[in-house]
Amino acid sequence: MNSEEFRIKGKELIDYIADYLENIRDRRVFPDKKPGFIRGSIPDAAPIKGESWETIFRDVEKVIMPGVTHWQSPHMHAYFPALNSYPSMLGEMLSNAINCLGFTWASSPVCTELEMVVMNWLGKMVGLPEEFLHRKGGDGGGVIQTTASECTLISLLAGRFIAIKMFESLYPDASKHEINGKLVAYCSDQAHSSVEKAALIGLVTLRYIECDEDFSMRGDKLLKAVKQDRDQGLIPFWVCATLGTTGSCAFDKLAEISEVCYNELLWCHVDAAYAGSAFICPEYRVWLKGVEKANSIAFNPSKWLMVHFDCTAMWVKNSSALHGAFNVNPLYLTHEYSGLAIDYMHWQIPLSKRFRSLKLWFVIRNYGITGLQEHIRKGVFLAEKFESFVRNDPRFEIPAKRYLGLVVFRLVGDNFITETLCKRLNSRGNIHCVPANLKGKYVIRFTVTSPRTTLEDIVVDWKEIVTVANEILQEREKYLTRAKVPLGAKDPKPTNQGIKGLRRSNAVNLNLLIDSKCKYLLNGSAMP
Amino acid sequence: MNSEEFRIKGKELIDYIADYLENIRDRRVFPDKKPGFIRGSIPDAAPIKGESWETIFRDVEKVIMPGVTHWQSPHMHAYFPALNSYPSMLGEMLSNAINCLGFTWASSPVCTELEMVVMNWLGKMVGLPEEFLHRKGGDGGGVIQTTASECTLISLLAGRFIAIKMFESLYPDASKHEINGKLVAYCSDQAHSSVEKAALIGLVTLRYIECDEDFSMRGDKLLKAVKQDRDQGLIPFWVCATLGTTGSCAFDKLAEISEVCYNELLWCHVDAAYAGSAFICPEYRVWLKGVEKANSIAFNPSKWLMVHFDCTAMWVKNSSALHGAFNVNPLYLTHEYSGLAIDYMHWQIPLSKRFRSLKLWFVIRNYGITGLQEHIRKGVFLAEKFESFVRNDPRFEIPAKRYLGLVVFRLVGDNFITETLCKRLNSRGNIHCVPANLKGKYVIRFTVTSPRTTLEDIVVDWKEIVTVANEILQEREKYLTRAKVPLGAKDPKPTNQGIKGLRRSNAVNLNLLIDSKCKYLLNGSAMP
Repeated sequence: MNSEEFRIKGKELIDYIADYLENIRDRRVFPDKKPGFIRGSIPDAAPIKGESWETIFRDVEKVIMPGVTHWQSPHMHAYFPALNSYPSMLGEMLSNAINCLGFTWASSPVCTELEMVVMNWLGKMVGLPEEFLHRKGGDGGGVIQTTASECTLISLLAGRFIAIKMFESLYPDASKHEINGKLVAYCSDQAHSSVEKAALIGLVTLRYIECDEDFSMRGDKLLKAVKQDRDQGLIPFWVCATLGTTGSCAFDKLAEISEVCYNELLWCHVDAAYAGSAFICPEYRVWLKGVEKANSIAFNPSKWLMVHFDCTAMWVKNSSALHGAFNVNPLYLTHEYSGLAIDYMHWQIPLSKRFRSLKLWFVIRNYGITGLQEHIRKGVFLAEKFESFVRNDPRFEIPAKRYLGLVVFRLVGDNFITETLCKRLNSRGNIHCVPANLKGKYVIRFTVTSPRTTLEDIVVDWKEIVTVANEILQEREKYLTRAKVPLGAKDPKPTNQGIKGLRRSNAVNLNLLIDSKCKYLLNGSAMP
Repeated sequence: MNSEEFRIKGKELIDYIADYLENIRDRRVFPDKKPGFIRGSIPDAAPIKGESWETIFRDVEKVIMPGVTHWQSPHMHAYFPALNSYPSMLGEMLSNAINCLGFTWASSPVCTELEMVVMNWLGKMVGLPEEFLHRKGGDGGGVIQTTASECTLISLLAGRFIAIKMFESLYPDASKHEINGKLVAYCSDQAHSSVEKAALIGLVTLRYIECDEDFSMRGDKLLKAVKQDRDQGLIPFWVCATLGTTGSCAFDKLAEISEVCYNELLWCHVDAAYAGSAFICPEYRVWLKGVEKANSIAFNPSKWLMVHFDCTAMWVKNSSALHGAFNVNPLYLTHEYSGLAIDYMHWQIPLSKRFRSLKLWFVIRNYGITGLQEHIRKGVFLAEKFESFVRNDPRFEIPAKRYLGLVVFRLVGDNFITETLCKRLNSRGNIHCVPANLKGKYVIRFTVTSPRTTLEDIVVDWKEIVTVANEILQEREKYLTRAKVPLGAKDPKPTNQGIKGLRRSNAVNLNLLIDSKCKYLLNGSAMP
């Protein structure tokens, strides 16, 4: 493709994208596909000769779109949102045209400089103390990472680096592996799975602190665990406080936790992956109290600020801890200003990075702070509406307080009935939700996406949920009558084994609802 | 910005991008900027109200472009190439519009399925054994990662997981930290800095094997080191073989190395970051011999296959080792086909991934295998031409064999003179190169980029190099005459301390050429 063809095809694609997003409600949000479905639609080897753009692009509607989970659909309520926006997409188009790699300052100076400025903008927008910002003589600053999971890992590795250094100097005879073997990290039992992954990679013990009845980690329980571990000769070194848990968007009590960390010399990392965007609205910053005693914080503008994936904002107070954990300096990466300018390669796991600040810059400027605040508040408003629909139907319950744009709900009764509801909703494909396990209760998570979402969309979603619930409750009624099992028969004990455990335990008394033939076919079918 | 405005502004941006790439020779390839240059051009806080696209876009030429290192310029010879292409950019535009996150199969089925198919295409294109491909009943397969550095880390962690498992079962009393403390990884002394970073993160000892006179790691030296470590009670577990080193694009002798790994039960990772793209041409696959005994291999289509960053292709024979190293499975990420379909979150460090196979698919289809082969061969041809220019000028030398598109050269004589040449070339900004340290010799790396590069560009580059070299040699001549230092005075002993060592050692006899005032100003200036 030469530039003349690109001018034509690129403009056609712009229209295709605008059409796609304008008419996204016409598409089934969750695809009706089985593993391996793509086989047969695509040859199993690359073409020898180049193909025309027309031939290639024809396959987008034929092969690609039918297999997409449409994250931009207002009927997408699974996980947390991952929103794009027009200025974000324009930013990325420009970034891809330039296609510079920003590992050192010199590898493309403006890539580093703009990132520093825009991360300062964003840090101020969410009300971070200035110790987290880039400033003259300061050691703090912001960086754009690929994902929040990487931020968790990076902060854990930085904390590990400091702890090992510290204990090596205290106990010169101890090897770093001995010290590492004694390191303990902490997080709430509601923390994201990426904390577990970080601990696996860092090869440190991870201690889950039981959350309170609001699903929050509290300072006293953390302190107790830290002291117990110290008594055992272990070395507590790092804590992950979650602001907005994946299960129910609960908030750990940061002020209590960072206080413990500060007193006990532990690295306090704040994972605000989803909820962090909301802190641009001052009314939500109450949850951020205590951040001044934390060491690092990360959230995803790629979730709720309409900067499309990937774009994770991370700030640290002491960037030299990252340097210590990652610093390697070969000659081919040194430059005239090495040591005088920021080389972001020392702040991250991969060497290279894309010019991601462009899209963040475009979005912040195009919407302005007030425009982005409106977007957040609209999302919360729609979630409140959905919550009120659920509360007005006594067959449903909301077992955890709603925070921000996430409502968790379930049908009153055993887990299996809600699991059936969730699965049937997804198989119909009109809305898409995923479940969570809250202290043994199977719940459906309903995240409001916006900016395209309207109140009408939410009404449609609720109608779909009620329709399917009616269907399931009627089936259940029929079954229970036929099987003469008294209503309210004791539910199987909830387990903590995740979906497999839930499945097994419920299957005992309600296996009629399981399409065993379908299950056999699935389990019997070969891997894709 | 609404969709109507996007249709207009997006099309204008398409033209801007085509213009940028068509006329890229008009821009200075390396910017004339100092750290902190952006201050003053951008407000230090975000705007309260949204700004118009016109206002925002005006800053692209005013603020952004003057600070860009133009990686797409034919006069960019630093690092390794990072090329974009029109079909690649179209692929990413579509991917950003869909903006799905591909962590599990269900999070967007076609995102996983297309990645599997296209990685099979690419694996076949470079001639990988079928154990590395996705196939029925097989455990192998390909995955797109963000960077080659992450592949190095991932494979090291997978190897570590296996080694720890193995030794835990052999020595049930040993803790995993004791085992980890004994693990030894190996690579050539020419390997990329990311291997060191991976070892830092994995907290394992890294042993550098001295390369031979062709800068290749050899099997005998590796085996000797492995045996010595075993004799010391250590546990060799992982080897990184480099195909195409950063310094000189040298090739470790993979057949020898993977044979050692196979016999000694070590995970053999092949880092072919740059050179891997060349294996689509059968004539270069000679260096790939032995891959059948390796465990993982990675290369960057984002370097030399015109798929813009990020896109790193990685294949493993046994994906369950990755699962073991990373597997965490919360309820909110389970789905109907968990365990039956590939969930790429278990193959990588971050949880989420973009729909990157689209751009790779578009590029492979639009160019076809033959089109991509032509592109590689053209790059090698232009490098050969450049090499012949250097060889015809006796003032220059090429201290390491040219491989593929990378020529390393230096002025005959001490390191300082070549360092001066490199710096002055970069400060003039007409071409951009970075240095490397080859066994103590300071060399300038000249990588051919293409696809826009023509023979005429290379001639222009060579003229620029000769002009600057003439200037420097004349200055030196003047200095030497004045200082009455005999020509050919013994060079300071080459050091292995990187640029700082080189600077110090040369400063002894040639400090007159250093602008000490400038140095003082730089070192005295505050951090940006």
